[in-house]
Amino acid sequence: MHGSSIDARYRAYLACLNDRRFDDLGEHLLDPVVHNDRHLRVAEFADLLRRDVDEIPDLHYDAELVLVDGDHVACRIRFDCTPTGFRGLPPAKEKISFVEHVFYEYRAGRIARIWSLIDMDGIRAQLAR
Amino acid sequence: MHGSSIDARYRAYLACLNDRRFDDLGEHLLDPVVHNDRHLRVAEFADLLRRDVDEIPDLHYDAELVLVDGDHVACRIRFDCTPTGFRGLPPAKEKISFVEHVFYEYRAGRIARIWSLIDMDGIRAQLAR
Repeated sequence: MHGSSIDARYRAYLACLNDRRFDDLGEHLLDPVVHNDRHLRVAEFADLLRRDVDEIPDLHYDAELVLVDGDHVACRIRFDCTPTGFRGLPPAKEKISFVEHVFYEYRAGRIARIWSLIDMDGIRAQLAR
Repeated sequence: MHGSSIDARYRAYLACLNDRRFDDLGEHLLDPVVHNDRHLRVAEFADLLRRDVDEIPDLHYDAELVLVDGDHVACRIRFDCTPTGFRGLPPAKEKISFVEHVFYEYRAGRIARIWSLIDMDGIRAQLAR
């Protein structure tokens, strides 16, 4: 698949997340998908994303930087949002801003692997203010 | 500059870091360089890298995944190393393994901007074992 096509596929995946269309994730991910070395069924991965939205009701994926090289995508994602209790942390008193740096491997037009890193220290520092 | 050329330039930069040739950093970075939104003189950036090596004497940058797209590079860097007191954390009893997910913007063959995220939670979890 050409870079421009993967770029379009990837942006469609982010739109799917932002629209909370978690039942459509199978269009974008292989089943199972490998997330940070864990093999997850798409349904399990969807549950993780639903939990994120439970903990951050105004969650929105904003792609600041997207790189496509062969079958790989790298994205710096910006989140400006108001966690109500993200991963055991206290709720935010006001909007915070943090990033995720994430790599994807595509296979046959779908995401086969994800390597994600979230700026948890940046989140903690803002929640402690 | 073509993708293959930037790829070669980037790998030469990592070799410079691994060889501890911090006096040569000016060949790879614009001066100043922007690192996580801070404008740093190359000499200041070199001091940060020297501090990393002080705190992790066996530091070695191992590029697991390199993407090049236009003037941008994204890399997942693996570190298998033995910190002796990295960023205020306790020393490691044995080798640990962690990653950095980092984006670069090249301008005129040199790195103009760096956006870096290190898996600090992964480091803490291994040091606490």
